[in-house]
Amino acid sequence: MPEEKKLILVTNDDGYRSEGIKRLASALKKIGDVYVVAPDRERSAASHSLTLHRPLRVEEVGQRVYAVDGTPTDCVTIAIGSILPGRPDLVISGINKGSNLGEDTLYSGTVSAAMEGTILGIPSAAISLDARRDFDFKAAAAFAVKLGRRILKNTLPPETLLNVNIPNVKKIKGERVTKLGRRVFGEMIIEKTDPRGKKYYWLGGDMEKWEGGEDSDFHAVTGGFISITPLHLDLTNHSSIEEIKGWKF
Amino acid sequence: MPEEKKLILVTNDDGYRSEGIKRLASALKKIGDVYVVAPDRERSAASHSLTLHRPLRVEEVGQRVYAVDGTPTDCVTIAIGSILPGRPDLVISGINKGSNLGEDTLYSGTVSAAMEGTILGIPSAAISLDARRDFDFKAAAAFAVKLGRRILKNTLPPETLLNVNIPNVKKIKGERVTKLGRRVFGEMIIEKTDPRGKKYYWLGGDMEKWEGGEDSDFHAVTGGFISITPLHLDLTNHSSIEEIKGWKF
Repeated sequence: MPEEKKLILVTNDDGYRSEGIKRLASALKKIGDVYVVAPDRERSAASHSLTLHRPLRVEEVGQRVYAVDGTPTDCVTIAIGSILPGRPDLVISGINKGSNLGEDTLYSGTVSAAMEGTILGIPSAAISLDARRDFDFKAAAAFAVKLGRRILKNTLPPETLLNVNIPNVKKIKGERVTKLGRRVFGEMIIEKTDPRGKKYYWLGGDMEKWEGGEDSDFHAVTGGFISITPLHLDLTNHSSIEEIKGWKF
Repeated sequence: MPEEKKLILVTNDDGYRSEGIKRLASALKKIGDVYVVAPDRERSAASHSLTLHRPLRVEEVGQRVYAVDGTPTDCVTIAIGSILPGRPDLVISGINKGSNLGEDTLYSGTVSAAMEGTILGIPSAAISLDARRDFDFKAAAAFAVKLGRRILKNTLPPETLLNVNIPNVKKIKGERVTKLGRRVFGEMIIEKTDPRGKKYYWLGGDMEKWEGGEDSDFHAVTGGFISITPLHLDLTNHSSIEEIKGWKF
């Protein structure tokens, strides 16, 4: 019995030419009509920004593939508002070249695209591959299909997206539902001097340590498991409202 | 009795030349030694991104005023890691020209600078002025001093920052500790055609409706109250972990 055709929006922050998005879109065709609406170039630094100060252009660069001269968040907004033939059943962002763990979720363009889908009321997920080179998208793309099928069947809890990180290993051990871990910051900045004697600075010198228990995303991925973290969008720290209410100004 | 001199980092996403940051820095001198480390130009679209693919330059543009060719997050990182004479006691970001309410907190460069301070373990707050024109920074700057004093005295709950929005009115009614409200999205996209017959798109056509109860940030600010929302950094939706664990792949 054939599965009912669903409408699926695929996006990313590496741009529509990225191998990760091509593999993702191709795999997801098994479970729906796939539209790719993605940045026209790498937008990894864009995080969760909306382009409001200039108009956006959309170019149809292939069959059901559109390039937008904006951020991942722009792409989701414009895809749902103007490009797609209807409201999508699913938004999947990725497959990102590199993991998005812990506080990365606050910076990540890949995750922010899925957040935007969630804000607009569409079940959404972000998928990232935990590697710096020798990316093997095969297992990640195969898992995206399983995940997409599962989300379409079960639906997600309200205002919740899934942040998925996949280990770049031949033999994946399984899936773990996790919490976000935390980076441990060491020396963040490397100071150098240019040939003209002027200083310059590189960020991110020593950012690769993590903390978090066995239920953390980092622990799962480094152990060879797929990490699935449910995220929500409400940054309110409800538990400290009463304390702050006691402050006198 | 003079107050103990504290070390205060001031930043923003509008750039070091912005009137909002000048007013803020000037006012905060009442309670500490103020260093301004801010982007060299407007970086409102930068959100929570770190510049990792190129080195950063820092220019001393005034007494204890430094311009960085990067994002607000870069500024906080480099200020704490390299520029300041010691670890700051307080990070205040702002005063932003325009409110940062509800989901804005996920996009905002102003808020992300305060998040970065929090990630690095410094008590931090973001201050935004709810106006689109005729910005009156006086009340906001005065409140920043009260707030800074209060944070230095009480300290903040762990891993918590304060997101403050100030109404742009002559007579502020007081302060409210609030939760983040939610945007209600209407028509997001305006499609137009250029003189050469090619389409282009403006985002944000109809984004100015909000929902949320009387305890929401939006409700407070539009009612003439200063809104203070405690935020945390953990996007994990802990309450849905068990549900997702029940999924079969």
